[in-house]
Amino acid sequence: MTISSPYSMLSVEDALDITLEQTRLPGAVRRPLSKVRGAILAADIAAKEPLPPFPASTMDGYAVVAADGTGDYPMVGEVSAGALADFSVQPGTVAYITTGAPLPGGADAVVMIEETEKLQQGNGVPTIRINQNVAPGTNVRPIGVDVEAGQTVLAAGERLDPAEIGILATAGIVDVPVYPRPKVAVLSTGDELVDPAQKPGPGQIRDSNRAMLLAAIRAAGGDPIDLGISGDTQEALERRVRQGLAEADILLTSGGVSMGDLDLVKPLLEHAGTVHYGRVRMKPGKPVTFATADLEEGRRLVFGLPGNPVSSLVTFYLFVVPALRKMAGWPDPALRVVQARLAQPLPLDAYRPEYHRATLSWDGRRHCFLAASTGIQASSRLLSMRTANALLALPQREGVMAAGETVDALLIGEL
Amino acid sequence: MTISSPYSMLSVEDALDITLEQTRLPGAVRRPLSKVRGAILAADIAAKEPLPPFPASTMDGYAVVAADGTGDYPMVGEVSAGALADFSVQPGTVAYITTGAPLPGGADAVVMIEETEKLQQGNGVPTIRINQNVAPGTNVRPIGVDVEAGQTVLAAGERLDPAEIGILATAGIVDVPVYPRPKVAVLSTGDELVDPAQKPGPGQIRDSNRAMLLAAIRAAGGDPIDLGISGDTQEALERRVRQGLAEADILLTSGGVSMGDLDLVKPLLEHAGTVHYGRVRMKPGKPVTFATADLEEGRRLVFGLPGNPVSSLVTFYLFVVPALRKMAGWPDPALRVVQARLAQPLPLDAYRPEYHRATLSWDGRRHCFLAASTGIQASSRLLSMRTANALLALPQREGVMAAGETVDALLIGEL
Repeated sequence: MTISSPYSMLSVEDALDITLEQTRLPGAVRRPLSKVRGAILAADIAAKEPLPPFPASTMDGYAVVAADGTGDYPMVGEVSAGALADFSVQPGTVAYITTGAPLPGGADAVVMIEETEKLQQGNGVPTIRINQNVAPGTNVRPIGVDVEAGQTVLAAGERLDPAEIGILATAGIVDVPVYPRPKVAVLSTGDELVDPAQKPGPGQIRDSNRAMLLAAIRAAGGDPIDLGISGDTQEALERRVRQGLAEADILLTSGGVSMGDLDLVKPLLEHAGTVHYGRVRMKPGKPVTFATADLEEGRRLVFGLPGNPVSSLVTFYLFVVPALRKMAGWPDPALRVVQARLAQPLPLDAYRPEYHRATLSWDGRRHCFLAASTGIQASSRLLSMRTANALLALPQREGVMAAGETVDALLIGEL
Repeated sequence: MTISSPYSMLSVEDALDITLEQTRLPGAVRRPLSKVRGAILAADIAAKEPLPPFPASTMDGYAVVAADGTGDYPMVGEVSAGALADFSVQPGTVAYITTGAPLPGGADAVVMIEETEKLQQGNGVPTIRINQNVAPGTNVRPIGVDVEAGQTVLAAGERLDPAEIGILATAGIVDVPVYPRPKVAVLSTGDELVDPAQKPGPGQIRDSNRAMLLAAIRAAGGDPIDLGISGDTQEALERRVRQGLAEADILLTSGGVSMGDLDLVKPLLEHAGTVHYGRVRMKPGKPVTFATADLEEGRRLVFGLPGNPVSSLVTFYLFVVPALRKMAGWPDPALRVVQARLAQPLPLDAYRPEYHRATLSWDGRRHCFLAASTGIQASSRLLSMRTANALLALPQREGVMAAGETVDALLIGEL
């Protein structure tokens, strides 16, 4: 897609397409098993050995020859998990066996201990009473029943959650091929900002966006880098932006992308690389800016996020999260969308699609999602993001959506 | 609830009730803002100052006296974000102002820059043409419009996600009262187990459960401690269990809770504390065991999880996750439940409720969740947890649930 001017107004969909087109998948790396939770697998994983690697008992009990049936039999040995038996079970004999232990040669089934009795011992060899007839194979997991040798147990592109990590451990993969966690740097800009630990002076406010974005980066699977606050001078900004581009795959600036002549971020990005868009038809978040810079170390993505905290976080979810996910190897990096019923009527905007912050809950009676607005949607009112786990994609048009109407909801948090 | 014997068979609901009744909420701690993502707030947070703390411009433009209306006015000064103006705006004059800057005294509205023109300057004082009539208050955020001084901005019991962290930063709370992350230790038991990095010898298998449970603890918001693998001797086990109780709030053992006489975990737990249950009517996971030990350092929870990897992870989600969440301060620690339509028919178990592993996806056409089974549900087959994000709570009864029927789904992963 080519656009005539980076500052013509794009739709959210076009802006997202451009963002993802410009995002490059990095090379795969190897990471230890204990560090890959949430990462995307970069190669198929095949099992080297079958599982179980031997016929294994699923019960504590007695290994038997199934054809023997019920009766009293001498116990010729014991086999517990972790070792092979040094004896075999002949017809007319049994052996004690524990869960997970390899079935001794000759035996073809296991009778669970609850269906047996241990009788008095004659000269050291106990006699076992078997009270149940079993078919061959009963209570035995044959070789390879869970995993065959050579079977692909995980595929490239899968996300490594706890079960997949267990599967890697089973396959003996402790050095795991994954896409690296993207490094994302955050720089707050604005002479009015002070660190949250400081008391603001006259005309100042605390910088809420940086702590918020650093947390959001972590939640999205990125590796955050804190570049602090930069005052509104070209030199201060340039130094920090250069640092961000050197250290991170993605640089986020917060503030300084509106239309005034003290907004230095856009000119700086034009200087450092290519600005792909600088205005998007959306509410909130219109001034969001996206640029790329091709360094020797690779392509960097730069997002100039608006300074209003809500605009900053909404544009983070809509543009940065999909880019971060694509860079982390997600085959489908888009935010998940569900449909939800409005709990209350919502006014629409005639000029821009609105991303209304809402708390989705599941209605267990009607089997649908219910979306409750978080209240006044001013872009400076961060309380409108409190408890929000979804952005309702309200269409651009006049009027009101009625309570009970269905709307697309983009998931940004847990249910 | 009192039970006659810890080894009588409980329902999942009763076992969960007992687990949560025995779980104690720890004392609150203070943690730095950068470390509290996902934690539960332990106290209400009130704003000390209003936000904005001064009337603030929402635009780059000119601060005006609204009653002046359109016309050409001398510009008497400039005010940018971060400082108060050292002049005031008299009727018939205007001042340049940037987004977020404090409105100078005398002015009561802002005209956005797009609705103005800068005319040629006469002896150093520029003249500004104002092309728009505005009402008092236009493009100005009054003091306290987003947050009033003293307003409760976050309540005890809320989960700290990125927006809430931004709200804490705004309120200047950098030392945050939260409940601590529970420490959860994992011990694998069984002579047959080798570390995933090792090649199993005859009769041996790799230990998949420990890596899996450590990842699941982290995903659930706990702080994992790896106690390694213990062989099946009373001394080895006792030493590791004592270590786990000393270091962790919750101790998980994996394996060794079945009925055979080499299963040492249950007797050990009876010795160390109180066993509350040791058999639960569920498939998989029946032998799951729960005990508490009251040490000088506080109450410890101990879960003896079954050795089969699926049983281990399913009982982790059903019992350990709610306990961990309660200990972490969650007001509602239960797994989230949604209803889903079955994508295929599923056989039921006549003797036990079954927790069938499934992948939920959202059906954007029918506006409901669709549940696809992960295949053969053997408790040793960890591949049945691959990509599973839900446990379907299948009722205990004979027969089959048909495709298209609705079933409760417990969420265990992301959608």
